[in-house]
Amino acid sequence: MSNTFGKIYKISTYGESHGKAIGVIIDGCPSGIEVNEKDIQKELDRRKPGQSKITTQRKEDDNIEILSGIFNGKTTGSPISLIIKNKDQKSSDYNHISTSFRPSHADFTYHKKYKNRDHRGGGRSSARETANWVAAGAISKKILHDLKIKIHAYVSKVGKLELNKTYNELDFDNTENNIVRCPDNKFAEKFISIIDDARKNRDTVGGVITCVIKGCPIGIGEPIFRKLHAELGMAMLSINAVKGFEYGSGFKGVEMFGSEHNDEFQIKSGKISTKSNNSGGIQGGISNGEDIYFNVAFKPVSTIMKDQDSIDSNNKNTIIKGKGRHDPCVVPRAVPIVESMASNVLVDLYLQSKK
Amino acid sequence: MSNTFGKIYKISTYGESHGKAIGVIIDGCPSGIEVNEKDIQKELDRRKPGQSKITTQRKEDDNIEILSGIFNGKTTGSPISLIIKNKDQKSSDYNHISTSFRPSHADFTYHKKYKNRDHRGGGRSSARETANWVAAGAISKKILHDLKIKIHAYVSKVGKLELNKTYNELDFDNTENNIVRCPDNKFAEKFISIIDDARKNRDTVGGVITCVIKGCPIGIGEPIFRKLHAELGMAMLSINAVKGFEYGSGFKGVEMFGSEHNDEFQIKSGKISTKSNNSGGIQGGISNGEDIYFNVAFKPVSTIMKDQDSIDSNNKNTIIKGKGRHDPCVVPRAVPIVESMASNVLVDLYLQSKK
Amino acid sequence: MSNTFGKIYKISTYGESHGKAIGVIIDGCPSGIEVNEKDIQKELDRRKPGQSKITTQRKEDDNIEILSGIFNGKTTGSPISLIIKNKDQKSSDYNHISTSFRPSHADFTYHKKYKNRDHRGGGRSSARETANWVAAGAISKKILHDLKIKIHAYVSKVGKLELNKTYNELDFDNTENNIVRCPDNKFAEKFISIIDDARKNRDTVGGVITCVIKGCPIGIGEPIFRKLHAELGMAMLSINAVKGFEYGSGFKGVEMFGSEHNDEFQIKSGKISTKSNNSGGIQGGISNGEDIYFNVAFKPVSTIMKDQDSIDSNNKNTIIKGKGRHDPCVVPRAVPIVESMASNVLVDLYLQSKK
Amino acid sequence: MSNTFGKIYKISTYGESHGKAIGVIIDGCPSGIEVNEKDIQKELDRRKPGQSKITTQRKEDDNIEILSGIFNGKTTGSPISLIIKNKDQKSSDYNHISTSFRPSHADFTYHKKYKNRDHRGGGRSSARETANWVAAGAISKKILHDLKIKIHAYVSKVGKLELNKTYNELDFDNTENNIVRCPDNKFAEKFISIIDDARKNRDTVGGVITCVIKGCPIGIGEPIFRKLHAELGMAMLSINAVKGFEYGSGFKGVEMFGSEHNDEFQIKSGKISTKSNNSGGIQGGISNGEDIYFNVAFKPVSTIMKDQDSIDSNNKNTIIKGKGRHDPCVVPRAVPIVESMASNVLVDLYLQSKK
Repeated sequence: MSNTFGKIYKISTYGESHGKAIGVIIDGCPSGIEVNEKDIQKELDRRKPGQSKITTQRKEDDNIEILSGIFNGKTTGSPISLIIKNKDQKSSDYNHISTSFRPSHADFTYHKKYKNRDHRGGGRSSARETANWVAAGAISKKILHDLKIKIHAYVSKVGKLELNKTYNELDFDNTENNIVRCPDNKFAEKFISIIDDARKNRDTVGGVITCVIKGCPIGIGEPIFRKLHAELGMAMLSINAVKGFEYGSGFKGVEMFGSEHNDEFQIKSGKISTKSNNSGGIQGGISNGEDIYFNVAFKPVSTIMKDQDSIDSNNKNTIIKGKGRHDPCVVPRAVPIVESMASNVLVDLYLQSKK
Repeated sequence: MSNTFGKIYKISTYGESHGKAIGVIIDGCPSGIEVNEKDIQKELDRRKPGQSKITTQRKEDDNIEILSGIFNGKTTGSPISLIIKNKDQKSSDYNHISTSFRPSHADFTYHKKYKNRDHRGGGRSSARETANWVAAGAISKKILHDLKIKIHAYVSKVGKLELNKTYNELDFDNTENNIVRCPDNKFAEKFISIIDDARKNRDTVGGVITCVIKGCPIGIGEPIFRKLHAELGMAMLSINAVKGFEYGSGFKGVEMFGSEHNDEFQIKSGKISTKSNNSGGIQGGISNGEDIYFNVAFKPVSTIMKDQDSIDSNNKNTIIKGKGRHDPCVVPRAVPIVESMASNVLVDLYLQSKK
Repeated sequence: MSNTFGKIYKISTYGESHGKAIGVIIDGCPSGIEVNEKDIQKELDRRKPGQSKITTQRKEDDNIEILSGIFNGKTTGSPISLIIKNKDQKSSDYNHISTSFRPSHADFTYHKKYKNRDHRGGGRSSARETANWVAAGAISKKILHDLKIKIHAYVSKVGKLELNKTYNELDFDNTENNIVRCPDNKFAEKFISIIDDARKNRDTVGGVITCVIKGCPIGIGEPIFRKLHAELGMAMLSINAVKGFEYGSGFKGVEMFGSEHNDEFQIKSGKISTKSNNSGGIQGGISNGEDIYFNVAFKPVSTIMKDQDSIDSNNKNTIIKGKGRHDPCVVPRAVPIVESMASNVLVDLYLQSKK
Repeated sequence: MSNTFGKIYKISTYGESHGKAIGVIIDGCPSGIEVNEKDIQKELDRRKPGQSKITTQRKEDDNIEILSGIFNGKTTGSPISLIIKNKDQKSSDYNHISTSFRPSHADFTYHKKYKNRDHRGGGRSSARETANWVAAGAISKKILHDLKIKIHAYVSKVGKLELNKTYNELDFDNTENNIVRCPDNKFAEKFISIIDDARKNRDTVGGVITCVIKGCPIGIGEPIFRKLHAELGMAMLSINAVKGFEYGSGFKGVEMFGSEHNDEFQIKSGKISTKSNNSGGIQGGISNGEDIYFNVAFKPVSTIMKDQDSIDSNNKNTIIKGKGRHDPCVVPRAVPIVESMASNVLVDLYLQSKK
């Protein structure tokens, strides 16, 4: 397996959904960064289950504990170990999948690849893992904060309904004011209603998260194989349920002519900038000082409360019954995950650019 | 910079567009693989400039030479060094950009990041680099061939026109029969005409490449941070001009309900398979034995034959004039690049899975 | 910092001497290996403080706890997280070094490099870290066990006294029968007495550990930059207090002529072997099937119970007083550390060779 | 295989002794460093064969050519590709080892590990590879030059004769004034005579190289797994024929008591320094500002002009006859190799410390 992300700001994670604990080691964090458990807890609380009617009703407090790497309230340059002990587990909810495979889950592929599979709560394949990423992101965000770089993610589409405003027309301060995390209140209400309808129908629905990075200095990203957008893409595609990534003009940019798409340069307020920003703030893999923005597509959650055809480990037909407490739509809780992974990528590439 | 791709089947590249040569070292290729220069040349010829009226008229033969790692016609396990000497260079075509920045190119960001920039032909940022990737891909394809894994890429969209068939309805043997590399002849003609119109209009246009991988065994891909689709996404987003990546149901999957999207399991011809394949052959980051398929979005080429506003390195306004010989659309020549990078990813993860 | 060792069997560690806990994540361990806490505890007990009169009198039970990666008594392929909570800490013993630097310790260099230094018990620089390596080694030893590879380390020199037998003349079963871990009882007694004298004299003394690996198959090690002996050397030189590494004929081999030193090949019992083994079982960086053997030099422990001249963080002269409970000689407790790191290296290179 | 060295200043090499060329890509070199072919050639000339009566009489000019990464005389931050074409090859000299194995060479282990082995001149296992390391070292030395760090290696022992002076008593300016590269003329003469006697006797002899690094700033090296001395050790143990590495007090330090060995701190000329330097300039893996020094043990060259018993690939007894043109002792030509690898390590860790 590969459980380490990043080259310089490296996060190494462990833990299964129903094991004793999950956790992350952050190696490569510079010394002297102020970090405390509250900073991290705040971000984890945005991701935690049970926070509203449109998320899973499972209750996990996800209390973070710092085991190493902080002294006198600041990082020491030593690895920072963060641990979240597991608590509200109903492993018996999962007995039915110990020998059979939930459709569109990782049960089957894990079984084939590793033979000895911890099926409880999905084991290692559970999205619970992303709590580790958010915890690491809470620390990388502190570094970005000192660099005046801000990351804003929000829900821009649920099911077939798409927010009809660009990020420039939105007030990001409003994102946390509703349970779906869309800064436009009207769309937020509609999104909530779509999700709630899916839930009532024992079904799930997909969505898109848009992420905007403001204040990124020129020069972040490596030009050939660690292009800023390629690293962001890889990070986003690592998140459970993600099916696509596009930045700047994205898939729509395909339809344009070069003369429309190109971002001409100008001098504005004494600084070089571009007149348009189809490049999404990245040229040749390197940040150019404009806003960075990208979209992440999430499929509908695979666990539904309906019967589904499946196969068991003896190659026999079986029916998978919907059980347990699950999210009808992943995007509201995925907003802090997207932000955190973007933050982890940025800090990693920022530190690389300092060599 | 980061000029190495892969962890086990590792490719390390070098070279500028108008330098003495470009080249690639492949480290980690197993011994005993039959490789000769013809195999590699064949793939390079699919990517080379000047192959048709809808590609750049620049003539580069891109002759590959093997410098090491092959003995008695087979790999030895030692690093394979491949070199392509540069020939048809008109560096004077680029004098105008030695101190000014082409819109939506990497000139500006390289200048800011590295100060000392080889501007000739775009230097290191030129898509000429991808010839190295194709050369490495020709060798990884040999490994896949022995494993009976096949990769088929083709052009599925140009500008606003999208091929209205799924990959199952296409005959991949037909892809190389037209200059745009679309296996559907009718659409091929239309795509060619759109590109040719853009060219005549001194403009450029974008496109989408679809890639299908057949015969991939179950178990390729790592479940947390080297998910098969995340690695494919990163590889594709590393290709010049790429703006987006989606696999399986992709961005359209967002609009579905879980009950529609889930791929139920079945036994068919004695083997476990899925009834649908919205997962795109990958579950939890690991191949499940079904076809893998994904889309890659390419923006319109940034070099257009029209005047554009820009800035020079003294922060003065300037006009960039369109010069040189360039592609009106990148997708026909990018088909072998997409295939090669998919092949490089697959072999790398295949070898990792063997540990 | 770099707190990860290995490329495929990767161990990532954290923890300070007087922090909440130390721990290690093992990523890349194959699935299906039987592992339980007792196996690991047994190895840790060989390293733990307070085990005899010639080790520190500090009492640390070093209880291992498995947090992840094991299911039904076997590894799952997922990262294995091991934690050892810290207990018997007298941090006040270290107040005197919060602003001054112990000679030949890492206090000064950490202070200069990281500014914010956890001085308690040496913080991250404490040899307590090596408990993590031994824990990881207990698991890699299980893998070697299945491959019938055996590692035997023992003390072969203390101060000026050197064991006058080669490893072939020793019975490794006897190593654990005395507190200094030398399989020759006579020398063991003498070594113990040298160490005890140093202790009584409030001083410390150095030593050499010899390590022998039997049963290593042909082909382990990479020929250019991950030569088996280079990896072993790096691993040993990572252990606190190590000043030198030699394998096979080592520094004495320098004095020989090629005609004496070369290991001629022969057929013996139907198998290719070498008549002599100055190569130490490694040729061109790759194991050749003969016994692997090497020596590791440990300096005298830097913490002595005597006054020493030093400087504080205000650049003022100061006297460092010997305090706390420390080892008069590191080698008895370092025997399992040497074995564990040898084991971690071997498994890592073994897994690499399987690609 | 693993043909890449370093994490940030990364060198990736290729090439066989009798192939078309050998070469190295340097990735991660900062932009703006002045580099030309003469700088590199000068270092290669120190390593090249045929330079005196005590080296091989093989003539290889080892002409370096820069293929990429330099523009207007300075590095651009892009990978620097260096190539040395092979010329004076008498591959027929090696026909006898195409199916049999030279004692203490890598023929046997390569054969077993890779099956398809390029036997000509030792193929990939030839010390010719180290020309790549010296070429990369010539560039890293330029970086160290700007940092005022100087590396001085010299021969300190040949066969049983050891130079009886410490490095402080030597004038390094004298090292290049004799063909054995020992700064003490009297010992140089004796060393030359020992080597020449071995040569006349169709035999070979071992030696030790001592290396001193002056001017290294405080803070280079990572404290746990990339300790400065562990990286130096790994680098040295990667050089062909190396059997041991020790730094500071080394193996002799074992015999000392802590009270003798510890390096007490003092203020001297307003700066913190240590009264003694048994630490060899490194404490806890990090440079402390004192001189760094270490010894590297080289075995006698394995190729001797005498008959030796061996085995062929059909497991039959055979006699290996001494043929070709070889070094009677490796140390004179290894001096620039030791310096170069030390330089490559230092620059890599220096760049890492800048994050």
